Amino acid sequence: MGRLRGVTLALTLALLAGCSGDRAATVADPLPSWNDTAPKKAIVAFVERVSKPGSADLVPPADRIAVFDNDGTLWAERPIYFQLQFALDQVKALAPKHPEWKTREPFNHLLAGDMDGFLAGGEKAVAAVLALSHAGMTTDEFAAAVRDWIATAKHPTTGRPYPRMTYQPMLELLDYLRANGFKTFIVSGGGVEFMRTFAEETYGIPPEQVIGSQGKLRYEVRDGQPTLVKLPDIQFMDDGPGKPVGIQTFIGRRPIAAFGNSDGDREMLEWTTAGRGPRFGLLVHHTDDVREWAYDRDSHVGKLDKAWDEAVAKGWTIVSMKDDWKTVFPGK
Amino acid sequence: MGRLRGVTLALTLALLAGCSGDRAATVADPLPSWNDTAPKKAIVAFVERVSKPGSADLVPPADRIAVFDNDGTLWAERPIYFQLQFALDQVKALAPKHPEWKTREPFNHLLAGDMDGFLAGGEKAVAAVLALSHAGMTTDEFAAAVRDWIATAKHPTTGRPYPRMTYQPMLELLDYLRANGFKTFIVSGGGVEFMRTFAEETYGIPPEQVIGSQGKLRYEVRDGQPTLVKLPDIQFMDDGPGKPVGIQTFIGRRPIAAFGNSDGDREMLEWTTAGRGPRFGLLVHHTDDVREWAYDRDSHVGKLDKAWDEAVAKGWTIVSMKDDWKTVFPGK
Repeated sequence: MGRLRGVTLALTLALLAGCSGDRAATVADPLPSWNDTAPKKAIVAFVERVSKPGSADLVPPADRIAVFDNDGTLWAERPIYFQLQFALDQVKALAPKHPEWKTREPFNHLLAGDMDGFLAGGEKAVAAVLALSHAGMTTDEFAAAVRDWIATAKHPTTGRPYPRMTYQPMLELLDYLRANGFKTFIVSGGGVEFMRTFAEETYGIPPEQVIGSQGKLRYEVRDGQPTLVKLPDIQFMDDGPGKPVGIQTFIGRRPIAAFGNSDGDREMLEWTTAGRGPRFGLLVHHTDDVREWAYDRDSHVGKLDKAWDEAVAKGWTIVSMKDDWKTVFPGK
Repeated sequence: MGRLRGVTLALTLALLAGCSGDRAATVADPLPSWNDTAPKKAIVAFVERVSKPGSADLVPPADRIAVFDNDGTLWAERPIYFQLQFALDQVKALAPKHPEWKTREPFNHLLAGDMDGFLAGGEKAVAAVLALSHAGMTTDEFAAAVRDWIATAKHPTTGRPYPRMTYQPMLELLDYLRANGFKTFIVSGGGVEFMRTFAEETYGIPPEQVIGSQGKLRYEVRDGQPTLVKLPDIQFMDDGPGKPVGIQTFIGRRPIAAFGNSDGDREMLEWTTAGRGPRFGLLVHHTDDVREWAYDRDSHVGKLDKAWDEAVAKGWTIVSMKDDWKTVFPGK
């Protein structure tokens, strides 16, 4: 075969590979930040089983849906959920416009720097801050505020920008799944408007593939300009049993693979893995108090208790950060 | 150039074209069921403006989002919404299990064959039938019932199966947009679980790109099997000002093109066309009482009044079915 024809043929084959949702794994290791322990082997075996041409259990590309929790699964969630940190920073920035906050629960604690006093208010205090600090903003204003914060804020203990508090092994996993014809979705208890500002750049997941908790919105024409205004009421909580509901409502078909880290993901993994044919469920277990954090059954954030028991009973894959990951955070 | 190399090169080019979201329109007319009148010219001019390589107003493929109403825009909506017809058929099928319906409004009218009596109950009667006839079913059971109905039911006046009550020119338009890198979504007041059972086969639109009104769902493990159960309560109404809200909630970015036919689509077109850069709004006007139906300002279904005025004021494209479409329904 002449050289030019050989080159053209190689190009053709490369293009065929690029076009196909069935592209086989490349020779280079697609998961270099994973140790060669059981979880990596289970992932690769599953992906090859559902996507390798000739496999008896091949799943059509349209049904290769993979869903990922965000907090504690794709990025860290300590010392507090990053969206809560954003809201706290917003409260401080907005406080001069709201003198009444100085004497109103739970804002008074925050403005006095009393984090323990604030956290004593539990979920209710958190919800109040999330709702009231964002209510009345248009979706465009909110997105701009999140983008500013993501670009400038630093994590309080590592000093890293938040997009570098993501897990390198999970970023590789997202790429690996997509290279094998999967469509990847986030299904998180976090706010959908918050996550969508960075999910595309950070995870390669476009806004329409991000599912999360939602506040109510109101359509309103302001000075002739159509706007969507954020209201303080909850429209939908995408957590626990809300996750299968969110999946059905937004995606409309059952995923074949689900990835989480806490009891809030239990029903999502249960719903995903109960479907017919090959299914995959995976929990990230935070076991590394040197490189990240170590917590599970008794944690106030990312509690992993009932989901752990169900994972053991049903044979879901459990990843030990300490033992199964070569690297935790991205290098640069 | 040798023949084999020429063939390989042609194949390479074909593959390149197939890979690219920027593929130029083919030489063959992509909209053969449209007359060469103003609406077709406006559509082609817009699509070339945003997608033709070298255009000053090129829009990145990720932002080429087009949203379509369903009832009256992609398929007919007379004499009654097709989903309502499905629900009525369900009521009749389920009636033997519900003897109490014989004396309960609005079911009593339906079971007595008194359609006028039923319709006198207005939206409330319709909502009651939609909610109660579906509540308690799992999403899998509901989808199976819709699939059965879609496969067998015939339209009362044309005798066509419902998937052939779609508009041929709009099917061509969907294909044309997708061939030029657009991602097409349905944004309809119809039920999301109803539309998703046929949207992929009928319109080439996958479930995750169908947005509609939703009932609440409950996650429940029945006899060890995880299920999602339909509840009688409304979760979200995707109509009127709900359409921009639905777009923001499900897609998370503003479309550049919107297609509707009634006042229920007004805010969707308003929101879409108010964005920066090239935008396109189109209304289908039902003007053909021979091949389809003719109705607008005074119709009880698909009322086109305020949206018409706004279309005229803002220069949205208005399609007259009678004058601008060569064919209405698919030929076979």
